Amino acid sequence: MLKGSAMAKDLPTSPLAPAQFPNLLPVAGVEFATTATNSRYKGRDDLLLAVFAEGTEVAGVFTRSKAPSAAVDWCRAALGVTAGKGVRALVVNAGNANAFTGRAGKATVEAVAAEVAATLGCAPHDVMQASTGVIGNPLDPAVITAHLPMLAGALGATAWDKAANAIRTTDTFPKGSCRIAEIDGYPVVIDGIAKGSGMIAPDMATMLSFVFTNAAIPAAVLQDILAGTVDRTFNCITVDSDTSTSDTLLAFATGQNARHQAITSFDDPRLDDFKVKFEEVLLELAHLVVKDGEGAEKFVTIRVSGAEDDRAARKVGLAIANSPLIKTAIAGADANWGRVVMAVGKSGEAADRDKIDIDIGGQPVTREGMVLPDYDEARATEHFKTRDVQIDVALGIGTGKATVWTCDLTHGYISINADYRS
Amino acid sequence: MLKGSAMAKDLPTSPLAPAQFPNLLPVAGVEFATTATNSRYKGRDDLLLAVFAEGTEVAGVFTRSKAPSAAVDWCRAALGVTAGKGVRALVVNAGNANAFTGRAGKATVEAVAAEVAATLGCAPHDVMQASTGVIGNPLDPAVITAHLPMLAGALGATAWDKAANAIRTTDTFPKGSCRIAEIDGYPVVIDGIAKGSGMIAPDMATMLSFVFTNAAIPAAVLQDILAGTVDRTFNCITVDSDTSTSDTLLAFATGQNARHQAITSFDDPRLDDFKVKFEEVLLELAHLVVKDGEGAEKFVTIRVSGAEDDRAARKVGLAIANSPLIKTAIAGADANWGRVVMAVGKSGEAADRDKIDIDIGGQPVTREGMVLPDYDEARATEHFKTRDVQIDVALGIGTGKATVWTCDLTHGYISINADYRS
Repeated sequence: MLKGSAMAKDLPTSPLAPAQFPNLLPVAGVEFATTATNSRYKGRDDLLLAVFAEGTEVAGVFTRSKAPSAAVDWCRAALGVTAGKGVRALVVNAGNANAFTGRAGKATVEAVAAEVAATLGCAPHDVMQASTGVIGNPLDPAVITAHLPMLAGALGATAWDKAANAIRTTDTFPKGSCRIAEIDGYPVVIDGIAKGSGMIAPDMATMLSFVFTNAAIPAAVLQDILAGTVDRTFNCITVDSDTSTSDTLLAFATGQNARHQAITSFDDPRLDDFKVKFEEVLLELAHLVVKDGEGAEKFVTIRVSGAEDDRAARKVGLAIANSPLIKTAIAGADANWGRVVMAVGKSGEAADRDKIDIDIGGQPVTREGMVLPDYDEARATEHFKTRDVQIDVALGIGTGKATVWTCDLTHGYISINADYRS
Repeated sequence: MLKGSAMAKDLPTSPLAPAQFPNLLPVAGVEFATTATNSRYKGRDDLLLAVFAEGTEVAGVFTRSKAPSAAVDWCRAALGVTAGKGVRALVVNAGNANAFTGRAGKATVEAVAAEVAATLGCAPHDVMQASTGVIGNPLDPAVITAHLPMLAGALGATAWDKAANAIRTTDTFPKGSCRIAEIDGYPVVIDGIAKGSGMIAPDMATMLSFVFTNAAIPAAVLQDILAGTVDRTFNCITVDSDTSTSDTLLAFATGQNARHQAITSFDDPRLDDFKVKFEEVLLELAHLVVKDGEGAEKFVTIRVSGAEDDRAARKVGLAIANSPLIKTAIAGADANWGRVVMAVGKSGEAADRDKIDIDIGGQPVTREGMVLPDYDEARATEHFKTRDVQIDVALGIGTGKATVWTCDLTHGYISINADYRS
């Protein structure tokens, strides 16, 4: 049954992967450790424990799935109790999603939280959890708890690549991003890691991602920043239109070594640079998730303008990005722009067929609903053969706009998923 | 650019194709002829002309795409003029969808209708049209009109296989169905043909299909029968979640040799058998479309029960049927029922994770949100290796139910679509 475990190791690194894992700076107040449980994956780290300084605040967004994992239920409930104040730990395991595991799943997250709380001397609801991997298999809490003493004894602040590696499932490379923002003229660090390669569609956080900063930002403000940013980043990517049961995005603000004055409002202009850098981190992570889309060979940017409003533009963009016919055409370097029209039509959003302008790789293809006489298909085909594909669609209806990102649909996707688990 | 034309001929017949084209009886009042225009496809028929006796009535349902083809626009407008009375002809070409062709596309359908009308001595709005194939290429009306005199001189009532063949694009086999219904104790024939293998998703007729009967049924009644039946047949199939710009389903009732008394109401109990047989024809055609899904190797039936209502059940069923992760798991004979839970969750319909019952191939897999201790995964895997895959999902919420049909997502789909046009 565990053929997938061997395969996950054997998957070649995505051709869209960055040359190397970026340099993530330490975040004051964040320490972590990883280990290999040797349960689903053999010989590689698959368990992450992060421990936070007292006073750390947390914000979270989660899958909109009606069948969320036990860990998602746990986090939502814990945040309901603490309002995001005083979080002390994050535990992430890869290989088993602890989803659709019924009462046993709930018992597992309770047992893990209790054990972490005992180890660190905090309350169970100060422990955040996330699980990713196969759905429907019971997760023995001992797989996690047996390693807690060792992890708690091995905490450090620098091995971000190991943290990013430990949360991978079929990801072919670890994903991280780092920025330095200024608040009151003082620098704060923002680090992020993410995992996710299949079951990626925008209906909330769309995978696992954790962002850490030493800025001192109250949970309520952090939650507003997070929610707004997600709509322009993780909610604008799609790999296969499938929504995970486990999508979790948590942001932790330790407030350690943060020399800026207190922040109390989302609208505080002193947060401007932080918001920009925070969004850069999330966008970079979201792009990395797409670039590791299962079987992805091309990174596709779809810009929609002239829609009724921004929401409509995003819906049109996602209709294009989720179309198997468009994604396979890109895989085959077939500049089949007719399929773009099809996707605009099926989105259900307002469009006037005879006003749709399409550009491929910056080259105008159609104007006023007709292909241009001097459209050079060979040039569009050449563009579709590159790693970075750009499609622009102007609807000519209003001023709404959005950018979404996806990857092509290749034989690799079929191979990986026809064969992932058993 | 026309690599697709060679390829279309070379595609191997779907392994799910029936052994042979069924025996379709003649329909009194329907004559037709086919020919090869040698435009997109070389050496095979790609143009169909059907001519109807005076007094024939027609009903139609069309794509919900916001960017419909010129032929769809034409039919909708013509039906608006005639209310479906007195239709005389149907022209169908394959290879060029005449969609997103702007003013030129409109001029083409007008020219074709005028020429057919002149040939037959009827009004242009008595001519129905459908086009299928590549989107965005102008369609020269001469491709069609040059052949009209020959077609009008070659009309016959029996070569249904040729008619079904002439409307194919990437279809690997012709699709037909025939039933005999009784009205007032007198038999009437119902014949149907269809095409469609990609860009198949329920948002109306989802492909081209034409149904012919010699029953005498007023257009308004025929329209009600058609609309209700489509929701349980063509709107319950999906291949790739993409919606065509050209989907067209037309039903023609000639009234020739129909010895039954006049029908004036949809609720007339004398129509009961006709409705049953009409639905059988549409269902058979819809199943054949799925069985010719691009790259399909397995026919998948998904039955959903216990939903909030029938609409919710269909939405859950389609979320399962459209999930690339489920479709690839079926292709790989991986009984990954966790992905079914994922799809239920993402459908957005009411569900209680801890009440979901899943059966695979008749074997209970989960009850009350947990996998059963005696679930035999090897048996489920064996079932997934067969050509007919059955997944049952009981939500335990209400009494809504629906059945939807789809196929697996294979390397064949990628090969066909990465390479269809250019």
